[in-house]
Amino acid sequence: MRIELINTGTELMLGQVLNSHQQWLCRQLADLGYTVDRQVAVPDSGPAIQQAVREALAVARLLVVTGGLGPTSDDRTRDQIAELLGRKLREDAAVLAHIVEFFRARQRPMPASTRVQALVPDGATVLMNAQGTAPGLALEVSSPHAHSGSCLLVMLPGPPRELRPMFTEQVVPMLQRRFPLETPFVCRTLKTTGLGESLVEEKIAGPLRPLTQAGLELGYCASVGQVDVRFTARGDKAPERIAQAERLARGLLGDLVFGMDAEQLEGVIVRLLTDRQQTVALAESCTGGLIANRLTNIPGASVVFLAGMVTYSNEAKLQLLGVRPETLVAHGAVSEATAREMAEGVRQRLAADYGISVTGIAGPGGGTQEKPVGTVWMAVASATTTVTERRLNLYDRETFKWVTAQQALELLRRQLTPISNPGG
Amino acid sequence: MRIELINTGTELMLGQVLNSHQQWLCRQLADLGYTVDRQVAVPDSGPAIQQAVREALAVARLLVVTGGLGPTSDDRTRDQIAELLGRKLREDAAVLAHIVEFFRARQRPMPASTRVQALVPDGATVLMNAQGTAPGLALEVSSPHAHSGSCLLVMLPGPPRELRPMFTEQVVPMLQRRFPLETPFVCRTLKTTGLGESLVEEKIAGPLRPLTQAGLELGYCASVGQVDVRFTARGDKAPERIAQAERLARGLLGDLVFGMDAEQLEGVIVRLLTDRQQTVALAESCTGGLIANRLTNIPGASVVFLAGMVTYSNEAKLQLLGVRPETLVAHGAVSEATAREMAEGVRQRLAADYGISVTGIAGPGGGTQEKPVGTVWMAVASATTTVTERRLNLYDRETFKWVTAQQALELLRRQLTPISNPGG
Repeated sequence: MRIELINTGTELMLGQVLNSHQQWLCRQLADLGYTVDRQVAVPDSGPAIQQAVREALAVARLLVVTGGLGPTSDDRTRDQIAELLGRKLREDAAVLAHIVEFFRARQRPMPASTRVQALVPDGATVLMNAQGTAPGLALEVSSPHAHSGSCLLVMLPGPPRELRPMFTEQVVPMLQRRFPLETPFVCRTLKTTGLGESLVEEKIAGPLRPLTQAGLELGYCASVGQVDVRFTARGDKAPERIAQAERLARGLLGDLVFGMDAEQLEGVIVRLLTDRQQTVALAESCTGGLIANRLTNIPGASVVFLAGMVTYSNEAKLQLLGVRPETLVAHGAVSEATAREMAEGVRQRLAADYGISVTGIAGPGGGTQEKPVGTVWMAVASATTTVTERRLNLYDRETFKWVTAQQALELLRRQLTPISNPGG
Repeated sequence: MRIELINTGTELMLGQVLNSHQQWLCRQLADLGYTVDRQVAVPDSGPAIQQAVREALAVARLLVVTGGLGPTSDDRTRDQIAELLGRKLREDAAVLAHIVEFFRARQRPMPASTRVQALVPDGATVLMNAQGTAPGLALEVSSPHAHSGSCLLVMLPGPPRELRPMFTEQVVPMLQRRFPLETPFVCRTLKTTGLGESLVEEKIAGPLRPLTQAGLELGYCASVGQVDVRFTARGDKAPERIAQAERLARGLLGDLVFGMDAEQLEGVIVRLLTDRQQTVALAESCTGGLIANRLTNIPGASVVFLAGMVTYSNEAKLQLLGVRPETLVAHGAVSEATAREMAEGVRQRLAADYGISVTGIAGPGGGTQEKPVGTVWMAVASATTTVTERRLNLYDRETFKWVTAQQALELLRRQLTPISNPGG
């Protein structure tokens, strides 16, 4: 079954926004067992939209089009698709009532331009928009436009907070009714950190070969500081194959595996600390608040995260964390001794179970021959011990911060989980 | 001149990674006066890559293809394009020497699979990769594959830190030689915060009409907490038109404009504080370190940013910031009084010129009837005054943090810049 995705928006072609829809929609579909075969982005121009839709309809059974359903003159998707398919647009009373109510509830005047969003092509199903005014639209398109049977064409509004719940609550059930999977589909992702992609592959590809030869699909996705291993299988034996693969891979990778599926390292930390009813406090220098930011992205973080200190200046390290002046003089701010005192200091001052510290040179400036840009010292202090680690992270500033945060979170995770296998 | 972009990668189709190349490349090209007409993403499959390249060559004068140049079995772009164009692959001695040296310098063994990256199609120009092993490749393709004159086909490696410098340093000069702009091109973006897109448009679209009728292009790009206004013009009068448009728009928008072109709000804050030789300290609760993280993404932030405290717990607010217990009891943690004491406390304790505080309810839990989820109080304290602001930010957790950080940075910006015009 061929699936195509079209993202409309001149802002995409000018590079003014990231196309987060592509990742989000592709991910949702993939995890349900549907794979997008091709994604196309075009500007808000009538001919470009029509051409892209025409080409996709010629091959796809499912076509999702995002953006261009709003009230402004750039919003052309609804009109252009209706014109291409020869469908008349009619004002829908329920949609109009929803738009009127949307503005009334917010005590804002309803701009006249907004009314155009109540126009619905003949034969379309309306997908109500709980978060905004423009409804989504779903249409069955048959030949001559769709040449391989008919195609389900779904138009979704551009704002992510409108598109996402609409897709999950309304499009997914429609899709599963319209295109039931022929065989069971199971997907599992193991998240790892600490080894590069080729070394992860080297550990598991050989031993898993009997399973991949029997139809298990194995994929790797490397980002900085993380390698995801994704297993998928179809058919009646899929759940069993995935379970076998997971068991085998976990045995081989040991505690390199920090989580599963959509879990992120910061989410794992919050979960582990919550389970253990323990708390953490942070002393960040070169990560500049990123570790705190990542932890507090997780709902429920407030139960385990007491406080973070971003101590960029030496004075702040002395005053807020109790680092000793003689330590800074003797070893410098980027040193094992300073990292240790930062972690222990923040742990004691906040009466936390764990203290994490990082201190390093993010660059571009600030490096020396002895301590080049990229040098980092980090520490995790607990009631009984303080572990430290030195890293050399040679990346641009933002990637440096990300990787360093990942390593510091991982250093804590290893204190929180019994080591099953060294893995490295 | 038609430009197409193809991003290859099964991980894109599975939604495992964000396609940051699209935004970055489109933005670089747009700011040089070249607009991408169409972007396509396809999986790492030979037929899918060949079909996408064939279709693009039929219409484009410039085709950029990203990804698939590495050493693994998924990396098919080089082979598939060489096969499609009937070009033989030959091992390039200079590329091989670069790969060998790359591993030698890092004291790592060179995997045998890496050698495939030294293969270069007949007639291709090699783009050396300073950050990695896979070189980029540039080819002139003439009919029968390219039907409208010949097409410049550029293949770039997938990792952003390899692709970006290669594009800027090697592809841009090649492009500007090969496709000189017929007329001068000028582009300018004004960044605003504080008003929605339609209200920004309402303020400037009418007064700018004479310029847009004379050929100035005016575009809006709204993201949460920010609206960018982009002017472009071509021709000999372009610089003058853009200057006129900018003057007019700045007059109408007043201090809603916080910056220009690639500037971000946090960059403006660092610049303004650096110019004034002043410092800032942060007391963040509901933004959880995001403000510190944003400021420290800016090189040079260490000169003006002393420290940030992420005081999630009430105890941390008392202990680290000196908020009075009776204030918390009488008004609660999310209140004007607490925000004020947090900002003043952090300013005094760090001896900073400015203290910023935010305290609010990010959700999903924690709301009450009186203080619903989304309620935020923020404050900026200086030696002479403390300003406070209440907001209701109804977004998901991460968007909430972003918008709140934006508003707090803007509250400081308004203390740092003389108000030229109320703008709102």
